[in-house]
Amino acid sequence: MFKSIAHLGPPGTHAESAALAYRDWFAKETGQELELHPYPSIPKTLYATAEGKADLVVVPAENSIEGSVTMTMDAIWKLEVLKVQQALILPIFHALISRADNLAAIRQVYSHPQALAQCQYWLEQFLPAAQVIPANSTTEALQHLTEEPQAAAISSERAAQLYNLPVIACPINDYPDNYTRFWVLSLQPSPGGNCTSLAFSVPANVPGALVKTLQIFAHRGINLSRIESRPTKRSLGDYVFFIDLEANATEAFVQSALDELKTHTEILKIFGSYNLLPI
Amino acid sequence: MFKSIAHLGPPGTHAESAALAYRDWFAKETGQELELHPYPSIPKTLYATAEGKADLVVVPAENSIEGSVTMTMDAIWKLEVLKVQQALILPIFHALISRADNLAAIRQVYSHPQALAQCQYWLEQFLPAAQVIPANSTTEALQHLTEEPQAAAISSERAAQLYNLPVIACPINDYPDNYTRFWVLSLQPSPGGNCTSLAFSVPANVPGALVKTLQIFAHRGINLSRIESRPTKRSLGDYVFFIDLEANATEAFVQSALDELKTHTEILKIFGSYNLLPI
Repeated sequence: MFKSIAHLGPPGTHAESAALAYRDWFAKETGQELELHPYPSIPKTLYATAEGKADLVVVPAENSIEGSVTMTMDAIWKLEVLKVQQALILPIFHALISRADNLAAIRQVYSHPQALAQCQYWLEQFLPAAQVIPANSTTEALQHLTEEPQAAAISSERAAQLYNLPVIACPINDYPDNYTRFWVLSLQPSPGGNCTSLAFSVPANVPGALVKTLQIFAHRGINLSRIESRPTKRSLGDYVFFIDLEANATEAFVQSALDELKTHTEILKIFGSYNLLPI
Repeated sequence: MFKSIAHLGPPGTHAESAALAYRDWFAKETGQELELHPYPSIPKTLYATAEGKADLVVVPAENSIEGSVTMTMDAIWKLEVLKVQQALILPIFHALISRADNLAAIRQVYSHPQALAQCQYWLEQFLPAAQVIPANSTTEALQHLTEEPQAAAISSERAAQLYNLPVIACPINDYPDNYTRFWVLSLQPSPGGNCTSLAFSVPANVPGALVKTLQIFAHRGINLSRIESRPTKRSLGDYVFFIDLEANATEAFVQSALDELKTHTEILKIFGSYNLLPI
């Protein structure tokens, strides 16, 4: 039985919100309470879980504005042992938090680079003269507000409440449809479900190698809901492809597609079949 | 005639090294000297060139370890008016720069998030207790060394020389094959060449839509040297694909492929055909 879940900390991050949402769902399903274990970086949450220090881990996989969370993908590809148990999607609202009296008094804006990128047009419009400074997490950005009265941070409304800080504006996202898909992973096998995630590399310099792999799914009418490429870190133009299928790997025709895929790929790693959590 | 080239500044960035390499090549070809215009962010270099404030702009397109430079791709897709004139590839060596007497005295390491990501295993091995802090550029990270004697920065050896700072270790890259491909763009049409870059979106929720587009090239024996997906920023699972073809768009059979592509895509933007600079 799962007893703990690792997430990017400190309290107030979007990953913690995902861990809390999962804990609520888990308690309703099983009657058991999960313990939250915050870690200072995404790779550290995954490595700790792979070593058995936590039973589950929740990590951001993809954001609708900024795309794949590359740190997550690289660590999961490298580790291989962690299997996806569930996915969950949370809406993301960014808040401008500051002790300054008004917008005109703000000189610096701190946040995680992903959050800064998601609010860049708002910042250009309303704080064109402010210096934009990256931080390791949206919560760490809040630490600057204590000593710097002219500083602001971009974080969540929940974090502002937790640390008792004033919200100046919310939401300040450039795009209203801002969602993050999280994955919950563990060392246990996947439970099965209507989404299958995998990644593979194809032999370098073979023309049409990627097309051949995608045709395997197209011929069987299996739809791809996501495709992302990441460098193999060997040389320019050499990629690992991360793919999500709208299919369950426990079904025979999906299994036959995966068997065929094995013959056209160099390395193939299957992260499991799972469902999207209804929250 | 081109007279100026915009790049991410301040002096000492990898983008400036690319601008200098291009300036040398340009002087040899034309006898003309290009003026360098540094800007504080990658999007700002591109927007300034689109507005005619600089004749050329050099931007990182892709790194062999960290992948596509998403800021560059998003801005080029949005602007559309800039066309690729040339590509150039530079090897990247990261140096640990500090006024500290030795490694043991270092408590903080500052750098651009891409550089920090490219040295993460080295940092875990040699500076496991040091705090890793993001900065807006590898050069901006150096500013911390003046006031913080226990701080180090990851930047280039050239930057250390420029600002008269000691190099503690170099190279500290986790992967030796670390290269960045840069693009030189302008408002002028592309000159033609053996590489063609384009991007497109496909109608959402049409199964096999991506496969159909890739088959257009596979059927004609046109090889893809790069494929990257980026979110359209509309909803999760809705992508723009960035593709590089080993082909010249001025040739008839390539043009016929692009005409056919138009009928299978929602939005298609062609960034031009160009050559890799021999430097």
